[in-house]
Formats: sequence, C-alpha cells, structure tokens
Amino acid sequence: MTDKITKIGIIGLGLIGGSFGLALQADKNVRLYGQDKHYLNKALTLGLVHEDLTDNLIPQMDIVIIATPVDVIPDIAKKVLNNIKSNALVFDTGSTKYKIAQAIAGHPRRGNFLLAHPIAGTEYSGPEAAFSSLFKGKMNMICDSKQTHPQILNKAQYIFEKMGMKTLEMESQEHDKHIAYVSHLSHISSFMLGKTVLDLEKDEQKIFTMAGSGFASTVRLAKSSPDTWTPIFMENKKPILQALEEYIDNLQTFKVLLYRENTAKLKDILKQINHIGNVIDKI
Amino acid sequence: MTDKITKIGIIGLGLIGGSFGLALQADKNVRLYGQDKHYLNKALTLGLVHEDLTDNLIPQMDIVIIATPVDVIPDIAKKVLNNIKSNALVFDTGSTKYKIAQAIAGHPRRGNFLLAHPIAGTEYSGPEAAFSSLFKGKMNMICDSKQTHPQILNKAQYIFEKMGMKTLEMESQEHDKHIAYVSHLSHISSFMLGKTVLDLEKDEQKIFTMAGSGFASTVRLAKSSPDTWTPIFMENKKPILQALEEYIDNLQTFKVLLYRENTAKLKDILKQINHIGNVIDKI
Repeated sequence: MTDKITKIGIIGLGLIGGSFGLALQADKNVRLYGQDKHYLNKALTLGLVHEDLTDNLIPQMDIVIIATPVDVIPDIAKKVLNNIKSNALVFDTGSTKYKIAQAIAGHPRRGNFLLAHPIAGTEYSGPEAAFSSLFKGKMNMICDSKQTHPQILNKAQYIFEKMGMKTLEMESQEHDKHIAYVSHLSHISSFMLGKTVLDLEKDEQKIFTMAGSGFASTVRLAKSSPDTWTPIFMENKKPILQALEEYIDNLQTFKVLLYRENTAKLKDILKQINHIGNVIDKI
Repeated sequence: MTDKITKIGIIGLGLIGGSFGLALQADKNVRLYGQDKHYLNKALTLGLVHEDLTDNLIPQMDIVIIATPVDVIPDIAKKVLNNIKSNALVFDTGSTKYKIAQAIAGHPRRGNFLLAHPIAGTEYSGPEAAFSSLFKGKMNMICDSKQTHPQILNKAQYIFEKMGMKTLEMESQEHDKHIAYVSHLSHISSFMLGKTVLDLEKDEQKIFTMAGSGFASTVRLAKSSPDTWTPIFMENKKPILQALEEYIDNLQTFKVLLYRENTAKLKDILKQINHIGNVIDKI
C-alpha cells in the first residue's frame, strides 16, 4: 500500500469480513467498501466499512476480500474476477479451499486470486462480533499459491504480515483434509455433545446447574453459526466423513474397553492422549 | 468452626484436596493434616497442609476430607468412619457418588458422612495445580443428605458457604446419571478427539500448525489425569455407556445427513443446538 488511497472491497460482513474491515482501517490511506445482503446497514453503522460496494464499483477496487459462507464463494469469486482491473488482488477467507480452487481453475484472471484461510474466529457471528485484533498472531493458510502472480502474492503477504498473521503454504486438497480434523471435527463433536445433553434436559431440568467449566469448554463451539457451518460441512464432505468415521471408531473402542472394564488398557490409551497437552499449549 | 483449633485431615493431596487445604487456611484456627502416598512431601513443601496425617491421628480430627481417586474412596471412607470421634464430619469429593453411598450404607457412623461433589477442577492435576480460589462461586452437589446427622450436615454447609460454594441436593443415583452427561461425556469426547487427531499426526507433521482456539477448547480436557479419570469412568460405567451411546447415535445421524447432503435438515438441527448458548453463558 502506497500513499495513494487503496480501495478495498469486502464481500460478506460477518465476523471475518467485519474484522478485516476494522483491522485494515489501521492504514488511513485505505477506503473500505462493503457488500452484504443482510448486514450492510449494520456494518456501516458499526463503521466496519465506509461505503456500499455496488457491483459497478468492483472494477475500481485494488483489493477484494470474499468472506461469505463457503458455498457461495465460487460464484462470487468468478463474478469478481470477471470485473476487476488487471493488477487487483482478490482473496477469499473460506474454511474450505479445494472446491473454490476448482471453480476458478483456468479463469483468465486466476493469477489475481489467492486462496486464503485465516485460522481465526470465535463462536460468535455477524458484524457485531467483529473486532480489530481477531487476526493478530494467528495462522493464515494460503493454498496453491503458485497459481497466483508473484507480485499479487507479494501484495497479499504484505497485508497479512501487517495484520500480524503468520503464513503457511499448503495444497488446497491437503488443507481441506487436515482442517477437517483440527477444526471441522471439533465443531461437529461440540454440536453433537450439545445435542446429547439438550435431548436429556427436556426431562431433567436440573442438569445444567451441574455443568462446570469443562462442559462449557467442550460445548462452546455449539454456539457457532449454522449459516456459516452447514455449508462448510457440505463443501468438505469427504474429508469430514473420514475424520468423523475415525472419531466414532475411537469412541466405540472406548465404549468396549469400558464395558469390559479393561482399566489398564483404557488408562494406557488416555496417557498417550495426554501428549496433546504439549501441542495445545502452543496454540 | 469456633475459636478453638479445628483439626482437619485431608486424604488425597492433588488438585482438589490441595485446593481444599489452601482454601481452608483462610481460617487461622484451622490445623491441616494431610495423607497421600505420592504427594505428601510435595504438599507439605507447597504449604497445602501443615502436618502428616498418620492413621493414629484420625480419631483427633474434627473433619476429614477424602479427595482421592474415586475407586479407593469406599475403603478409605469405611476405615475413617471406623476411627473417628463421635461428632466428626467426614466428606468425600468424588465425581461419582452411588458406589460410595452403597459402600457406607448401614455403617454405624453413616450419619457422620456427607457425600459431596464440588463441580470444580481444571485440566491440570497434582498438588502443584492446587489454588485457593478453585471452589469460589462453584456448585457443590451433596447427595442423600438425609442420611447425614443434621448437626453434621450444618457443619459441612457452614464450611462450603464460607468457601463461596453454592449447594444443590440430589440423590446419589440421579447425580451419577446427570454428571455422566455434563462432565464425564465431555471428558470422553475430548480425549477421543485428541486421539483421532494424534493418530493422523503421526504422518502429518504440519497438522497442528493449523489448529486454532476452537480445537484447543474442545480438546483441553484431553490433558486431564488418567489416574483420576479412569476410575471415574469405571465407577460410573452404566450411566456413561448410556450417554456415550446417545452421543454416538447423534454423530451417526450427523454423518448420514452429511452423506446424503440433507443441508436443510442439518442446518435445522444445528439451529436447535444453538440454544445451548443460553445455558453455557450462565456457567
């Protein structure tokens, strides 16, 4: 970004798009344009963006960020690429990457696009949930970046670094497989844990007075937005089904060991899992 | 507690027993005696208790707290009850209650015993993990309390209130069933989620660099002590098997809806689960 005004369009003004808006305002030479079917007025009121991004303004944008639910990203990406100027950067922030990669493969402006996924979020959603420091210190996955023009990629990296993000390069298919395990599966386990306890609670009013911080921690993600997460689950169906299969297998193994009262074996398995502590303490 | 010195014995000097020791030191008229096969010296060094609780000192205690792993509580409870003075209070802090209730049923000193379960803890264990405010504002379950002499029960309530705990009365069997859902199942889901990702990570070194706060939150309890938790799972086998069955059923339903790409139904279920937010915000 130079001294001249950089025009940035943000499509999708929820937690992620809104937080990009707030973070990018640190640069006073930035003018922010927003587009969102539901949240535009709220986002303008909250000051997440400065102006309405009407379609006719797309060709004026230096950067376009697509932060909508993942199922609509492919169509929006193509529409944006069809209309941008030659040196514009377009990136998306979706939690799945391969289907988007396929949708824009071979597009004449493919080099203007970067597949990105900032590993950042909370269990809250919508423009009110946005905050400027959401991305600070977080990991930003970028995928298939050899498909992006080097100078466009540099432009993107400069912005991400300025926002305090670290970057990891990965192929889009590999990304989708791994993220199924370390993000999507967590959301499913949390949602279904919430469902299991809610189902019981219909008859047992007292049950939640017994819930402690451990329950709150494991079920926190069950507050996540179904509008965001249903499309993510559908888009990443195959890797998620595999991860879910393995998770259910592990729960079944636990069940069998408990049923047979195989205390030694169960304790041994739990001890091995304790090593996860070394990992999550670094997150 | 009056102006004279109250002698309190704590058997089991890990996170829970150690934190009781620290919290009870707020009263300067308290003298604390500790017993633990592994942790006694560490607990004395850390100042969690003042002295070694040798078995011959049990008859001098005004209060005895049993905070060991749940599988050994029944035998310790009986041994302590056999040796206490007539107006002593004995309570345990175990996460399961029914088997302990059964073990001491009909004991001549049953009225001196209170089945308690403070819903408090962290993913850490051992005497170093203890801290004085662990129980402040937390819920303390007390079970089958009609079996406890009223004046002994009053003594217990006075201590719990002084430590800042709220109290909920419940039958021991009902307690064990409900706690399987809001605590034990959370630990199992977290342990097995950790295992699922660790199994994959053997081949995929990069996977944890992609993990965010959501993963950390759902897998936090997988750091819990296998020495504490294996006995809890075994003691509460029946209610846990039922809760686990329902949880696996819900995961299977999710899998089928995803496989069939039934987006509308899946989103509808997730929306209903979102109500859990109202509940956990109060925890």
